Amino acid sequence: MRDVAVIGVGMNKWGEIWEAAIRDLLAESVLLALDDAGIDSVEAMYIGCMSSGLFTHQEHLGSMGPDYAGICPTPGTRVESACASGGAAIRAGYMHVASGLADIVMVAGVEKMTDVDGGGATFALATAADQEYEVYNGVTFPGLYAMMANHHMNKYGTTRDQMAQVAVKNHLNGSKNPLAQFRMKVTLDQVKNSVMVSDPLTLLDCSPITDGSAAVVLCSMDKAKELSKKRLVKIIGSGHASDTIQLSQREDISYLKSTELAAKQALKMAGRKIADIDFAEVHDCFTIAEIMVIEALGIAEVGKGGKATTDGITAFDGKFPVNTSGGLKSKGHPVGATGVAQIVELTRQIRGDVEKDRQLKKANIGLAQNMGGSGGSSVVHILEGM
Amino acid sequence: MRDVAVIGVGMNKWGEIWEAAIRDLLAESVLLALDDAGIDSVEAMYIGCMSSGLFTHQEHLGSMGPDYAGICPTPGTRVESACASGGAAIRAGYMHVASGLADIVMVAGVEKMTDVDGGGATFALATAADQEYEVYNGVTFPGLYAMMANHHMNKYGTTRDQMAQVAVKNHLNGSKNPLAQFRMKVTLDQVKNSVMVSDPLTLLDCSPITDGSAAVVLCSMDKAKELSKKRLVKIIGSGHASDTIQLSQREDISYLKSTELAAKQALKMAGRKIADIDFAEVHDCFTIAEIMVIEALGIAEVGKGGKATTDGITAFDGKFPVNTSGGLKSKGHPVGATGVAQIVELTRQIRGDVEKDRQLKKANIGLAQNMGGSGGSSVVHILEGM
Repeated sequence: MRDVAVIGVGMNKWGEIWEAAIRDLLAESVLLALDDAGIDSVEAMYIGCMSSGLFTHQEHLGSMGPDYAGICPTPGTRVESACASGGAAIRAGYMHVASGLADIVMVAGVEKMTDVDGGGATFALATAADQEYEVYNGVTFPGLYAMMANHHMNKYGTTRDQMAQVAVKNHLNGSKNPLAQFRMKVTLDQVKNSVMVSDPLTLLDCSPITDGSAAVVLCSMDKAKELSKKRLVKIIGSGHASDTIQLSQREDISYLKSTELAAKQALKMAGRKIADIDFAEVHDCFTIAEIMVIEALGIAEVGKGGKATTDGITAFDGKFPVNTSGGLKSKGHPVGATGVAQIVELTRQIRGDVEKDRQLKKANIGLAQNMGGSGGSSVVHILEGM
Repeated sequence: MRDVAVIGVGMNKWGEIWEAAIRDLLAESVLLALDDAGIDSVEAMYIGCMSSGLFTHQEHLGSMGPDYAGICPTPGTRVESACASGGAAIRAGYMHVASGLADIVMVAGVEKMTDVDGGGATFALATAADQEYEVYNGVTFPGLYAMMANHHMNKYGTTRDQMAQVAVKNHLNGSKNPLAQFRMKVTLDQVKNSVMVSDPLTLLDCSPITDGSAAVVLCSMDKAKELSKKRLVKIIGSGHASDTIQLSQREDISYLKSTELAAKQALKMAGRKIADIDFAEVHDCFTIAEIMVIEALGIAEVGKGGKATTDGITAFDGKFPVNTSGGLKSKGHPVGATGVAQIVELTRQIRGDVEKDRQLKKANIGLAQNMGGSGGSSVVHILEGM
């Protein structure tokens, strides 16, 4: 397998964007990433997108993506794994370059979620859960994560304040990120007193509905050394695992087995331990999710993710900063774009080119964890500066 | 890049299958392919599916697929490129093995189309066309292909009988395929006198709405030599290209540029010319499509695809047999499964293990062409017996 580097990144300002269609959103980040890489063409394009069919009635982004980015007849392929679509697209692009079939591949992610009919965004998102055994019985994602939260609280004594602290931390980080959707800081009381969505999760425990895109250019290392004038960022690990799609089929609904397995694969490939990693972007679709993810990754002991959060371990100035971008909570969660935007953030932090007030002092090796559904799939990548 | 072989294939009986959900259809072919390969696990799974979201309200097949096939936590990734989803999934699985990241990868394709609400199958399929510039103005796929047919008739003198002959030929082939959906033979008159769908295309010019799945097991050549007791079938070429998603943006709507480009890539990789290929499975979503595809592949001269068909060139006993399986026309077209089923047919013909009355005498090298939308994307693979 050939070594693969990230040589370009791009991301638009996320939010509720009424003036742009999905094709416009996608093209914007693709053009930014091409510009950042200093190139004007690629050999192939992958597009992470969860459900452009349900959200916008537009499938076949594998044709539309290259077309509207002005790089036809470059082949395009859409990759979907619910909210892990972006991570899965990164992995597909990585393999394309690693195999030797191409030197330069674009990986974009996009979702246009706010202009939706046919049941709305919560219905469309719920298609990532088991329709016949979960959704038809009335549960959508806030309900599924609320069950996981209640189980975690009962089993480990995780508290309401610990969950709320995830939101406080990520909004603080996101308040410094000019591309984030919700840049306001929030307090513990504001999180706890916001409107109840699914007990114990309130509105500010939930990631928002977002329009947005992100893109990265992957390149074989040899070619990257020729082409790039920026610090090269190498993909040193990639992992991917599944779990049962239904919560009810799992041994323990308060543990994310697919995340553990994907991380183990990626760390093994990288020849590292979790303690060697400087920082991470993780899938905080709900506050409880970040707590469970940092446990599955080994950043915190199992059952102590909440305490690690209130202890400040995962804060911007903590021992293991998590979600410096603001995470899904504050930056927003256009589902197909999220996993790609995580790679954008890791690359920028490693290169040292994020805004000064949110630049980590030590950011040489970063990890991205992207998750589908209630953990039915997880993708983990590890990036290192060269 | 490592050499990759097909070591197992599986496909269920296609049709209008009310007793099975999409998860059942998918699992059935996956288990058949594992059994054919003589193995009980794989390292990763790809699933070609166009729109399980719109057809069945179930996304996240990357989790559900491995789960219901009983191979969790094997990672699963859904790949979509409209009606070329199956071909794109084959290409993704091929790169996974070729890269060295895994030795054994399952590629499945599935679509459950007959049990659909929310506008019906024609609406869901139309999401492969440009929503804003084509579909919102009232055109769906029969209309788009009718425009292409009319242009081809005007430009080259292609006749109604020539198009109808594609249906006659493919139904004759499909009548011998026990897994095909519509096994009746049809006559020229029956095709021409069937109900008008979009002038000049009648009902029997159109491929049907189908429930079905197909699966293949890909394996690194070294491992395949250890594992497999059957004739090994090597993937010697893979190509993929895009075109504008809108017909109106093309120089010539009667020519499939993306098919030409994908075929050129695949032939170059294989070190072959089209004359070296023994037979092909191509994307006859409408009869005119097969005529245009054989022109873009170079099986017939441009403008003479209709004549080549009535001359019998592409018949079962012709110089270059096309769609021995019955094609999309007779075998059926569960969109995400179609590109995978083409590889199933090539593999079986090359191995010499299809039903005796439809076994080609010369089937050493075969080509599969799978197409999305009105040709906005095309994928071509070439397989050779070892």
